[in-house]
Formats: sequence, C-alpha cells, structure tokens
Amino acid sequence: MAEKLKIIALGGLNEIGKNMTVYEYGGHMIVVDAGIGFPDDEMYGVDMVIPDLTYLVKNKEKIRGIFLTHGHEDHIGAVPYVLREINVPIYATRLTAGLVRLKLEEHRLKADIRTVEAGQTIQTGCFKVEFIHVNHSIADSVALAIRTPVGLVIQTGDFKIDTTPIDGDVIDLTRFGELGKRGVLALLSDSTNVEKPGYSLSERKVGESLDGLFKDCQKRIIVTTFASNVHRLQQVINCAAKYGRKVGVTGRSMENVLKLSIELGYMDVPEGTLMDLTRMKGMPKSKQVIITTGSQGEAMSALYRMAFSGHRQVEITNEDRVIISASAIPGNEKTVSRVVNELYCKGAEVIYSEYPEIHASGHACQEEHKLMLSLIKPKFFVPVHGEQRHLQTHARVAAEMGINPKNIIISDIGRVIEFSSKSAKLTGTVPSGKVLVDGTGVGDVGSVVLRDRKHLAQDGMIVVVVSMSSEDGSLISGPDIVSRGFVYVKEADDLMSGMKAVVTDAIDGCAARNISDWATIKSTVKSRLSDYLYRKTKRNPMILPVIMEI
Amino acid sequence: MAEKLKIIALGGLNEIGKNMTVYEYGGHMIVVDAGIGFPDDEMYGVDMVIPDLTYLVKNKEKIRGIFLTHGHEDHIGAVPYVLREINVPIYATRLTAGLVRLKLEEHRLKADIRTVEAGQTIQTGCFKVEFIHVNHSIADSVALAIRTPVGLVIQTGDFKIDTTPIDGDVIDLTRFGELGKRGVLALLSDSTNVEKPGYSLSERKVGESLDGLFKDCQKRIIVTTFASNVHRLQQVINCAAKYGRKVGVTGRSMENVLKLSIELGYMDVPEGTLMDLTRMKGMPKSKQVIITTGSQGEAMSALYRMAFSGHRQVEITNEDRVIISASAIPGNEKTVSRVVNELYCKGAEVIYSEYPEIHASGHACQEEHKLMLSLIKPKFFVPVHGEQRHLQTHARVAAEMGINPKNIIISDIGRVIEFSSKSAKLTGTVPSGKVLVDGTGVGDVGSVVLRDRKHLAQDGMIVVVVSMSSEDGSLISGPDIVSRGFVYVKEADDLMSGMKAVVTDAIDGCAARNISDWATIKSTVKSRLSDYLYRKTKRNPMILPVIMEI
Repeated sequence: MAEKLKIIALGGLNEIGKNMTVYEYGGHMIVVDAGIGFPDDEMYGVDMVIPDLTYLVKNKEKIRGIFLTHGHEDHIGAVPYVLREINVPIYATRLTAGLVRLKLEEHRLKADIRTVEAGQTIQTGCFKVEFIHVNHSIADSVALAIRTPVGLVIQTGDFKIDTTPIDGDVIDLTRFGELGKRGVLALLSDSTNVEKPGYSLSERKVGESLDGLFKDCQKRIIVTTFASNVHRLQQVINCAAKYGRKVGVTGRSMENVLKLSIELGYMDVPEGTLMDLTRMKGMPKSKQVIITTGSQGEAMSALYRMAFSGHRQVEITNEDRVIISASAIPGNEKTVSRVVNELYCKGAEVIYSEYPEIHASGHACQEEHKLMLSLIKPKFFVPVHGEQRHLQTHARVAAEMGINPKNIIISDIGRVIEFSSKSAKLTGTVPSGKVLVDGTGVGDVGSVVLRDRKHLAQDGMIVVVVSMSSEDGSLISGPDIVSRGFVYVKEADDLMSGMKAVVTDAIDGCAARNISDWATIKSTVKSRLSDYLYRKTKRNPMILPVIMEI
Repeated sequence: MAEKLKIIALGGLNEIGKNMTVYEYGGHMIVVDAGIGFPDDEMYGVDMVIPDLTYLVKNKEKIRGIFLTHGHEDHIGAVPYVLREINVPIYATRLTAGLVRLKLEEHRLKADIRTVEAGQTIQTGCFKVEFIHVNHSIADSVALAIRTPVGLVIQTGDFKIDTTPIDGDVIDLTRFGELGKRGVLALLSDSTNVEKPGYSLSERKVGESLDGLFKDCQKRIIVTTFASNVHRLQQVINCAAKYGRKVGVTGRSMENVLKLSIELGYMDVPEGTLMDLTRMKGMPKSKQVIITTGSQGEAMSALYRMAFSGHRQVEITNEDRVIISASAIPGNEKTVSRVVNELYCKGAEVIYSEYPEIHASGHACQEEHKLMLSLIKPKFFVPVHGEQRHLQTHARVAAEMGINPKNIIISDIGRVIEFSSKSAKLTGTVPSGKVLVDGTGVGDVGSVVLRDRKHLAQDGMIVVVVSMSSEDGSLISGPDIVSRGFVYVKEADDLMSGMKAVVTDAIDGCAARNISDWATIKSTVKSRLSDYLYRKTKRNPMILPVIMEI
C-alpha cells in the first residue's frame, strides 16, 4: 500500500487562534505556524492557550522544520513553547523572523531561524515549500505551496486581496493561478471573514480617512491600532509628515515593533519625524501625534492609562482627537467602550469603529474567497482558521464555486486527513486540545482548577476550621469560620453566628451518633452548612471544612 | 425665590440599563421607570444591578407615582425592589402593566397598578403626565409629556420611528409637533443608537425576510427572538399560518409573554396554530415551527439546551433551519457564537445576524433623532439612556439641529438639574449608584466582596491552618494546607511540600524572635508564602492563614 499524506490541524479549527497544522508523509513532518489563542470567559486567570504538543513531541525525530506564514500572535505566539520541547529550524520571512526573535529574547531562548523571501522554495525531507506573497494586516505575509509526494497542497495563511496595498505589493494572484493550472490537490484556506459579503476594504482607504482627520485639525492627534500593523503605522507617519507634525510613541509592544520594522526597512520614516514623548511637552498641540498601544482597551495599555489618568506623560484634554483605528476583537467590545467613554469624559474627541473606513480587516471577504477558489481550483478543499460557522459557510461558498461537495472536508483539531493523489478522507485522531498557560505554569491549570475558580468567582468561599481530639474525637477548639467573596462579613453578624451554630450542631450530631471518621464529619458539616446558606441567601459558596487533629 | 423643578436620573446615564428618573417640585415627586441593569464582567456572581434607592426612600412621602414607559427589564425590572421600600401607585399602559403583574407575582408582591392608554393624561400632585404613543421593539410603548409648574418636559422613553409598524400604529409625531409648537422646556431623549447614521429598519422588513425563509422551506423552522418582542412573534406566527405550519413554544419567559399578549389582545393567533410541543413530534418537519428563548445564547435557555443536546423535546438535525432574529447585546457576542457553532455542528442551517434584515433594532438612529428634535424644538436638551459616547454624540446632533449648546446638559446619575421656566443648571447631587443583587441579597455584595471574588477567580486560594498553644505560642499541630483553584494538587507534590516548609520556617522564625502575636505571625506566613509562590509560579493566589488557639 502506498504511503499517504496526513494533514492534521493541532489548532485553528473550530476555534479562532492557536493555529498549527502538521503535514506528515512517511518519516517526514513539517509544522505550519505555532500560534496562541486567547482564553475564553470561563478560563479564569488564564493568560493564554497553546496547542497540545503531545503529537509533536512524540514525533520529534520526524520534524524537519516549522514554517511561519506571518508574525501575528495567533501564528507565532507558541513558538517558544514548541522550542522548549523540540529543536528544529524555523523558516519565516524577514519581518516574521524579527518578531519571533523579539519573542525568543523575552523567553531567553535561542533558535535556528532561517529567513526566506516570498518566491523562494525550501526543500526539506520529502516536502518542497514555496513561499507566496499575500496581503494581510501585517507586512511580509505568505501563503505556502507545499509539494508533497501525492500532490501540491496550498495553505493560504491569513490573507486578503488588496489591489492598492501600502507597499505596492499586491497578493501574487498570478502564482496561485499558475499552480491552479498545473493542478492543486488540496487548498487549506483562511475562513475568518467568509461570512462577510463583498470585498474587504483596501488599507489605502484607511489612509484617506486618516488624512481627512489630520487635515485642518488643530488638536493633538492620538492614534492607536494593532502594534503589528506596520502599514497602518506607516500611513499615520505619512500623515504626520505631510501636515508637519512630530510623532511620539508609547506602549512597549508599539515601541518594539516600530523599532524592528524601521531597522528591517519595512517602514520609511522621514528624518526628524519621530520624537521622544518627553521632548514633545512644550510643543503646540497641533504639531503633535502620539501613536499608542491599547486598541483593544487592554487594562494597563498606554491608551487605557491615558483614559484613566494613569499615564505619566500624556494628559487627555479637549485639545485631543483620539483615533482608534481598529475594530474590537469579539469579546473586547466592552473594554474598548469603557476606554472610549473615559476619553469622552475627559473632553477628547473620539473617532472609533462607528466612523467610516477607519479600519480595514486583514481577512478576505466572500468575493475574494471566490476569486482564490477560481484561480486555485483545488481537487479537495479544507476550510481552516475559523469556528464551525465560518468553516461551514466557507464550505458552502466552495460548493457554489464548483468544488465537489464530497471533496470538501470539514475537519477538527486532532483529526487526521489522509490524502493520496486521488482521494482524501478523515481517518484517525491524534492527541490535541487546549493547554492553558497561567504565569509560568504550562498545563497545570486544567478543568478541576478552572471549575474551582468559577465556583469561587460566583459565590466566594467559606473555610470552617475545628480542632478535634485524635483520641476520642471530641471538639477541642472552634469552629472558626473565615469567608471571602461571600458576603460583607462586618454587616453579616447574624449570618456568621448562624453558621457557627449550624456547624456546632452538625458536629454534635456526629458525636451523638458516634461518628468519628473525619471524612464523614466533614461532609456532614459541608452539606448542613450549604443547605443553611442556600436557604438564607440563595447562594452556593464553596465550603471547605478543615479538621485539625490534636 | 420661586420653586425650581429638579430632574435627577438615578440610573440610565453613563450606562446602558437601570433606567430611573425622578421629577421633583416642592413637595411633589414622580418617578419615571424603574429598571435593572446587567452586571458587567467584573461583577462576578452578581445576578443584576438596580439603582440606589436611598433618595426615593428618604422622600417616600413625596412620591405620587411611578410612571412606566414600556415593559422591558431595563425599565420595569426594579419595580419589585422599589415596592418593597415604598408603596405608591404605578401607571402604565396595558401590556406594560401585564408584564409588571407577572413580575410581582414571582416576587409575591401586590401593588396598585393603574392602566393608562396612550393619549390619556394623569394628574398627580403638581404634575400632569400625558402618555404619547411611540414605536419600539415591544408593543404599547409610550413617551411622557410632563407638565410641571415651570414648563413642559418630554421624556421619550425608548423609541424609534417606524412608518410601517406591525400594529399599524405609527409613533404619534403629530402630538410631538403640537407640543413643540406650544413650547417645550426640556427634552430627555433616548441615545442608544444615536451613533448609527440614517434611519432604523422597519419591523415590517424583518417580516419580509422571515417570509423568504419560510417560503419553500422543507425543514422544521426554529425561531428565537427577545420574548417581549410581541410584533416579531406576531410576524413569525403570521408566516407559520400562511405556510400551513403549527407553532410550538418553549422557554418559560416566551410562554409567559405569549400567553399574556394573547390574553390582552396584543397578538392575533389564528385558531389551531399553536400546538403543544409534545404533540408536534410525529408531524412532518415541514409543518413545524418552534418559537424559543435563547436569542442571547443564555446558558440553560431553551435554544442553548437544544444546541447542547439538553432539551427534552427538541433534537437538532440537518432538517432544521434555526433563525436567530436578534442581535447580540454587547458582551453576549461570544455566547451567541457558541450556540451558533453547536447548532451548525448538529447539521442545522443557522440564520443569524450576518443575514440581511433578520432583526430590527427598537432604537432611533441619527436621522430619526433629528426629526424628533425638529418637531419638539426644546429649549433645553438632556440626552439620556446611554454611555458617555452616546450622550456626547447625541449632544452634537442636537447642536447641529440648532439647539443652543449652552442649553444642552450632559448629566450623570445622582446629579440634580434644576429648571426654572427660563434656566437650567446642574446643581447638587443625591445618593446614587449600583446596588448589586445576588441571590436573595440586595446590596450585601459590595466592592470588598467583588475584589475578593476577582482575586479568587484569577489565581484561586490557599488556606494555611496551624494550631498553636495559647500558653506559650508553640506549634501544636499543622501546618495543614488546602488549596482550590490554584494548581492541580495531585500533580503538584513538590509545590505542596515546598509550601509546608516555607510556612514552618516562617513560624519557627517568629518563635525564635519571640513573636507571639497572632496577627504578626499570620502576616509573616502570608508574605513569606506569597513570595515563594510568585517566584515559583508567577501567580498570586489568595492566602488565608488560620491559627487555632488551643
């Protein structure tokens, strides 16, 4: 039986973020992207989510390299965690490589990073990987055309079609068309914005809106966007230069990315345009621009601190025009709104998502997907990077474009798709899932800990401590009751003494029935107290009985 | 000095929800609306938020009545809590009155509810309150024109302008125009959708979309919307009747509201259209419609249970078309998305907010506000019902419409606006704020409890128990360490024994320095353990040292 190509997503299917795809053929394996996801609402206290790396670790001898499509966190954020487990070369374009290096410095890790340009092809093991230029909301993004022994597979990475991009470099549609003509076995394509009809907005249109907001403006202009959106930053700087303003930068990630992209030549900043914030103080407001982090209203970001009067150098007044050149990522709507409201309260004029063409998404809309499908004409189609709603919508679009519905495969993380040159099917599964990162801990917060955190968050907790004799089980001291997050204790005397009475009564009851086993006593205390509190308050705090044996 | 009219918002300014406005003149007071707000993300475990009622309770002798504009929770939800404190008549239109009665039954409260019709005027104390019909996403909504000794004040309540409403009853623009001609001292107007340009969609357009989704459909149709959206429900029932389908209803609030609106004559359901869900089981799918709760993806709502296979009567298959005829309230985007994804996974076709004209908002957009301002031509303008961004945008729109900017007042909850027949100004403040309702507790969860819940949610907690001799302070037993929500204890042996060592060492250190004061020992244990854990894990669990005195 001939060897099959296996494609396995370890992240990015049925979810937004933590993108990671494995290509496997015989003894050869490559990994495309290694991203993080953001914790959802129920993941209390979790900093980020990474893919389960079990399958990679198990096959570490096979892995020839990690190929990165672009420098966003959901595609490169997990690189340090992968490198701790396996040592393989990383292939990436220059900007992506630079961003990975920044990240590895923070983690004090070294790696073999190999810089590739769009148009180049890397051969490793039985795979030949061609980098193809695409447009996206970060510079230097690529799709990958992966030549395998059973045929050519294209993975788009995140992309859009921008016919007037800032760097003049339109997505390489010709190359996709050439490959399509020669025959593409399978296409794995970004589904993020497939629900949106029509075409995405060109980045250049945002520049026109920005220009309108700079022209004749007498106020200081404060702009926030995603730090990695190099082309947006370039347009802000262009406007500043055009209207004779100096630009100060605040927020660590913004400073880092700007420095890096200037060094690498991805940004062109006219001499003397950038200025240290502290030096701008005395200047007329109409000559100032501040570029800041905080487009998602993140607590403690520079814009957040400005809004809540906690920024050391910037005080917001009615002489400020604040431009939030970004849309809120689902789940961040309220935090962004809170910052907008505070800025308004301080007298600022605030321009945000309700303003026309103030932000352009980096993801293709429905008509762009149709164009790509018509060029690539894949035999098999696998929608990726999206929740179920996006994957199914993308499948429907592909079917409308003439892809045989039987050849459209909606997979899931950990599921194996096996390809021959003629067939594709879902076969087995490999370990996959969400590994939670909390502080320095990777994977030590799981469902039990999260369930407890949720319980504690909802109704708080009560600790009941008694000390009992190890000889005859008699009560020596207590019950002492400590509560947190339940009620304001200073105004709940009755409830506190009621609790003590219930606990004492429960322990006496056990003694009367000659129950001396600690576990039974604890569970009796817990259930009696729980009933009492639910009756009194309709709440269910966590109850922790502790018995000290003396 | 002549008496002034005071208008004081106790809720609904700088926030969405918990609307409540007080009108006070001399010894007379009326209250407009008594709504709840939804807890924000930081209010762990809180069920709802109501206005601080201190000012009402303090002035209970003055209050002549509560006037309700319509039956949504953010306008009537706090009525039971007000009635527990003060006993006054409630004035409302029939449907609103019916919904309040349902609510009071749940709370086992009785009240003096007086039914009023649009067009009627109620005189009470020195106020004459005229009810004026408006369009909104619930039937029987009114604005109030309040004649006071210093002049006429109009409070719009929530409204939109719908020239083709389902009940044929267009907002009474003529009456607003007549009052405008005679002279309106002040207008308090809904700001919810003022950021949106243009006009809101007519409810009838949603009916046309629904019709398109019913026509030729062979699947079972499941529709969810806000239970109180009587006209939307009417349109679903009309479609069902037109295409020969039976309608089953699931979800308690949906059943209650439907029953009430049929009883009161707000809905017209053709004989035999409604059917018990259990009786529909054997029928062809193409003959079934199910109306369900869960348009916000609420956990345990009927639609949620269907999606997660927890509904006893409804199993979702590929023979279902699910229509979510609602938009997600900010903050609910992710929960709605989760339900949509699950429905897709079960094979259903899902129609939601991305589908054109599948939902119409109940709030006026910018052009409608301009129309109202042009009719009413108030001397003073007070934007209400909105966050700061909405209030300021509404202020800007009013200024564009020719209202003197000096006469536009952006107030805040608890702030007093004093009106004479010629002037208006912000003067003092009265007690106001958010009172949190958790279970049966009203106001017993405050900032201390919330801070603890947040801390517990983020990093969990650790209880350290020791028993010490009351005579010489020597350690008798322990330390015992219990943790919850911190790490998975079974896989953290090293950390647990490390913690014990640190605690023992801290206590020994105190003994060596002859420290016998419990408070000092506790704080030493806490800080030593906290340092240790942060170094090991970069986390800050709550640490609770308990010393039992033996």
